[in-house]
This record gives sequence, C-alpha cells and structure tokens, in this order.
Amino acid sequence: MKTVTDRPRRPAKKDTQILKDAPAVVLVQPQLGENIGMVARAMLNCGLTDLRLVKPKHGWPNPHAEAPASGAEVVLNGVRVFETTTDAIADLSFVIATTARQREMVKPVFTPRAAAAEIRALSSKGEKAGILFGREAVGLHNDDVSLSDAILNVPLNPAFSSLNLAQCVLLVGYEWFQLGDETPEAYLSSRKETRPADKGELTGLFDHLERALERAGFLYPPEKAPAMVRNIRNMLGRAGLTEQEVRTFRGIIAALANPRANRTPGE
Amino acid sequence: MKTVTDRPRRPAKKDTQILKDAPAVVLVQPQLGENIGMVARAMLNCGLTDLRLVKPKHGWPNPHAEAPASGAEVVLNGVRVFETTTDAIADLSFVIATTARQREMVKPVFTPRAAAAEIRALSSKGEKAGILFGREAVGLHNDDVSLSDAILNVPLNPAFSSLNLAQCVLLVGYEWFQLGDETPEAYLSSRKETRPADKGELTGLFDHLERALERAGFLYPPEKAPAMVRNIRNMLGRAGLTEQEVRTFRGIIAALANPRANRTPGE
Repeated sequence: MKTVTDRPRRPAKKDTQILKDAPAVVLVQPQLGENIGMVARAMLNCGLTDLRLVKPKHGWPNPHAEAPASGAEVVLNGVRVFETTTDAIADLSFVIATTARQREMVKPVFTPRAAAAEIRALSSKGEKAGILFGREAVGLHNDDVSLSDAILNVPLNPAFSSLNLAQCVLLVGYEWFQLGDETPEAYLSSRKETRPADKGELTGLFDHLERALERAGFLYPPEKAPAMVRNIRNMLGRAGLTEQEVRTFRGIIAALANPRANRTPGE
Repeated sequence: MKTVTDRPRRPAKKDTQILKDAPAVVLVQPQLGENIGMVARAMLNCGLTDLRLVKPKHGWPNPHAEAPASGAEVVLNGVRVFETTTDAIADLSFVIATTARQREMVKPVFTPRAAAAEIRALSSKGEKAGILFGREAVGLHNDDVSLSDAILNVPLNPAFSSLNLAQCVLLVGYEWFQLGDETPEAYLSSRKETRPADKGELTGLFDHLERALERAGFLYPPEKAPAMVRNIRNMLGRAGLTEQEVRTFRGIIAALANPRANRTPGE
C-alpha cells in the first residue's frame, strides 16, 4: 500500500482527455428509462460520457431517465441511438461483453480490473474500446457476445450475483477510473492549521513526559525504567501526532503534574 | 495480469466463514426504505450480511425496502436497529467512516481498496470491522466521523462524485469481496466439449496448411517461403485455437484445396 502523510493533490484532468480515452458504454435494448438515467449518473461518476443505446424499449429521449441521472445531463444529452449492436460498435476497435452467465464460447474472460487495464492499454495506442451491457432481465444475446472481443464477468457472491444494470456499469467504470487516478491508497488527512510533528517536537514531548513520570515515582523500579520508557515512546510514536497535538499533550502533562497551577480562581 | 487458459473453479466458501470475516455495514439515519433495500442487495452481492441501522427515519421494518432488495432477505431479516452510532459499533474493533467531503480531522484516509485490505488484515487476527455510511443527502456528522478509526473516500470524477448510498456500499463491498476471491483476472473460456489445442495438433495444422499452400504456389518465391511460414504460424498461434477449431480449420483447408471433393451432389 502506498502511504503518504499529507493530503494529496489530485491533478484536474482536462475534460477532453477524459472524453478521448474513455470507453463507450453500449446498452443493448434497455427497458427502463430509470435505469438509463442511473447508468448516466454512474458513468459520469467515473468520467465516462459516451453512452449508446441499441433499440431502447421505450424510445429516446425518455423523461423517466432525467431524475435518476441526478444532474448527469452531459451524458443524457450526448446519447446516440442505434438500430443494431453492429451499428453501435462500428467505430470501436475492441468490444467487451458483460455477462453474468458462463457462455459456451471461446473468448478471453476478464474481471472488471483486467478489462480496465486492457482498455487503458488500448487507448494509450489510440484505440477506442466499448463495453456492452444487456437487457435488465436477460442480459446479452449470444449474437451480441459473438460480436465482442472479450467477455467481462464481475466476481461476486456466487449465491447472489445478480447486479442491477447501473451497478454493473458503476463497477466497470470505477475500475477504469481507478487506473487513471493518482490518489494514494491511504494517507493521513490533517487540519489545515497544523502538520505532522517533527522528531524534535516528539523528543521534546517524550523528555517532558519522562521527567514528569520520574518525579511522580512512576518509573519504578529503576532497572525497569528503560523498558518502560521505550514502551511509552512506541505507543506515542504510533499515534502519528501532529505538532498541535504535541502541544496539547504537553499541556495535559503539565496540568496533571501540577494541578493547582492550572486551576482558575473560581474552580 | 494473471492469465490461465481454462475455466477457473471458484471454491464455494462456507457461509459461516463469510459471516465471520465480513465487516458490518452501519447506515446512520437512512431516510428511504428503498435505499435500505438496495443496500441489502449490494451487500449480499458482495457476501456481506451484517446490516445495522441507526435511527432509520421511517422506522424498521420498512415495507419499501423489500422489492429493491431483490431477494436479499437474509440481510433484511437480520437487520439490527440502534438508537445511537455508539451503540451500533460497540462490539467492533475498527470503524471506517465513508465521507465524500474532506474533513478537518487527523485520521488515516483510505480508498475502498486500502480499506478492504485493512479489514481483511484485521479479520485475519479475529477483529471485526464496520463501515459507517451517512444520510443520503448530508452524509455523516462530524461526531460520527470522530468515533471512527479511519475515513474512506472513493476516488471518482471530482466534478461529479456524488454516489447513491447503495452504490457507495457496493464499491466498498466489491473491493472487500475481490480480496477474498480467487477468480483469475483473465482467462480463456471454452466450450465444455473441447479444450485448448496441444502443440502436436497445432503442428499438424501448420504442416497441413503449408503443404496445401506449397501445392497452390502460394509460397513463392522459394527464398521468401521460410519467413512467410513463420508469419502464418505466428498469426495462427496467436488465435489460441481449441482442438475442435484445429479440426474445423483443417476441414477448411481441405475444402479450399480440393473444392469438388466437398460438394454435395445437389450443389
């Protein structure tokens, strides 16, 4: 896992770059406008905008798509409608068919992650890919699958693997987006007005605490004191304190070690 | 990318194992029953079943959850309801808060993938984790986030990153499931009655084709024949032919080389 200790800056990608590299999403005979709208939203979440419909059951445009799209108008407004799957994929050089069932065909089968890597590799060579999604209830026909270069299966709970259409689009788009995203897998967020403590500040805290514990008689018996000190330093070191937290902690030590000095007259 | 050339066998996991290792999903003040149902479906897709609700707006059980759950009754029937987030997470040893916004708090921030790895690592030590999801419109309160050990942000299109509740649960559950899934990232599916051709069968095909091309005068001039043969072998080798396809191909060669022998009387 990559880990950094400061807030990452995610470079704003140019929209034109997103449009050029992104795969097309082809819905074959989608039935519900609501699902088309939810697909548009999931696509834009992942930076995808090229949505193509093959013979949508209720025609296009479909007003039921608007509310579920939650503002993804740029996708809905750019939708293109085709009579056949063959027409819809004519300009693409690599097509992946999503299927939940095993097909009796000899084709490469990808997970979403492997498909995303393949699509990224192709787009780096200037080739445009597309992903076919079938009808809500029955999926793609074998004829559509046979037009494709590869099959995509999402590994999920084998006892309950049926995904809603937009969720399937989301998982594929998510994997595609992750491969272009530069967010570190884990980092430490921090308040704007502070920063991670440096080693000098930590050492100052440790010294302060150990002097206070020494005076309080805590580091006893003396032959055990070095191990006790090491354990305390490990424990505090693990907390990843900020500079501000070091100051707070030193205030706590001072208050505990000398209670009356910190009381206001009214207490 | 791992690639194998046969259909993978996914070992059926014992349900009890899934239940034991899986993180809890905690929805804080969810508003719509439909969303709770969709969350249940997304959870079961990913092998998650421990769903906890903190003060659901319309109480529980909620009949609006049933249809969107699409059969995920095992999740709905096991729902537990709590008055406070503190109560809901009392038995968990590690809690991750999903947030779309940056929070002014000093906490580790994970992607879904890093969070999944952390949860898997904890469960291998017998510790149970949970993931908090906030209200549909406004997300988690800072008080809930401060109860958590870490923050989860999903890297998505920064210009359009708002996810529906169930989609956010799906992405986190999906990453968790992938880490325990043994499906290779890419493999070649094949029809049951066949298998990949072995090298002897391929060599037989190459020899057959090259003899036919030799007789047809295709391998000309003779000094270029070796390079032509190599190119043809490369091209056919790349196709990853099955044993059955080799036989079909040899039939095609025979038919082309000797058309009349293959015509039925009526043609």
